[in-house]
Amino acid sequence: MTDTTNDLVLDRMMEAPRAALWRCWTEPKLLEEWFCPKPWYITDPVLDLRPGGEFSCVMNGPEGEKFPNLGVFLEIVDRRKLVTTDAFAPGWRPQGRPFMASEVTLEDAGEGRTHYVARAMHWSEEARKEHEQMGFHEGWGKAADQLEALAKTL
Amino acid sequence: MTDTTNDLVLDRMMEAPRAALWRCWTEPKLLEEWFCPKPWYITDPVLDLRPGGEFSCVMNGPEGEKFPNLGVFLEIVDRRKLVTTDAFAPGWRPQGRPFMASEVTLEDAGEGRTHYVARAMHWSEEARKEHEQMGFHEGWGKAADQLEALAKTL
Repeated sequence: MTDTTNDLVLDRMMEAPRAALWRCWTEPKLLEEWFCPKPWYITDPVLDLRPGGEFSCVMNGPEGEKFPNLGVFLEIVDRRKLVTTDAFAPGWRPQGRPFMASEVTLEDAGEGRTHYVARAMHWSEEARKEHEQMGFHEGWGKAADQLEALAKTL
Repeated sequence: MTDTTNDLVLDRMMEAPRAALWRCWTEPKLLEEWFCPKPWYITDPVLDLRPGGEFSCVMNGPEGEKFPNLGVFLEIVDRRKLVTTDAFAPGWRPQGRPFMASEVTLEDAGEGRTHYVARAMHWSEEARKEHEQMGFHEGWGKAADQLEALAKTL
């Protein structure tokens, strides 16, 4: 049995087709539109869609806060699955304190809808709790609202 | 500049062709012959050669010691590069305390020889020192001797 104790999961039905959600996740200009709960926003997104390829952006706050995020893609299954982690920088360079791997899966649910699951898998209970206290559920939930709204327009 | 402070590196010229060294790394029956410095040996090798695929074995000591090792492949470039890590179990499950990623590269060096570089990249100075004290240089060196001797017979 897989131990999912240290996972945080967002699981919802999206009123948008799988291909549109995939575009929002993988095209930099679209990612900018939804990836952070507003009024936060990202700049400089880099999406090198291959195992080990860079996945990075800068998270910007309304007061001028700037938080660079650097990680890599671990696995890409076209229009079905994306896995990323902050444990590595490009070149498989171990970096910082490995916090989580993030897996997004998309499944057709009929009538133009998609079953969307975003799973944050942490290395420790401590990291999972920290992420929960940082507002995982609200933050990822709001971002998913923005993602769905954008995907509907495509 | 890439910071390689926490790397440990074995770099040598192998008197064996690249294709033979690759077979020794990727065929379970061959891996068993060289992967541990004798009198230690491995059993139950699993090599699922794809990003995220299982890379595991049990390390066995002469006094009956048994140390299971579980990790995954991060990248496979046929006959050129193999990258693995202990940070994940299959399914990209974060596991334990991430210790290192290991990268092996093979380059033709002419006359049936191969430039072989095995690089252990650690998440911290502490992990790198621990690995050095566990005998990285002697252990990986002896294993490389066994690898070269086996590859020459293929």
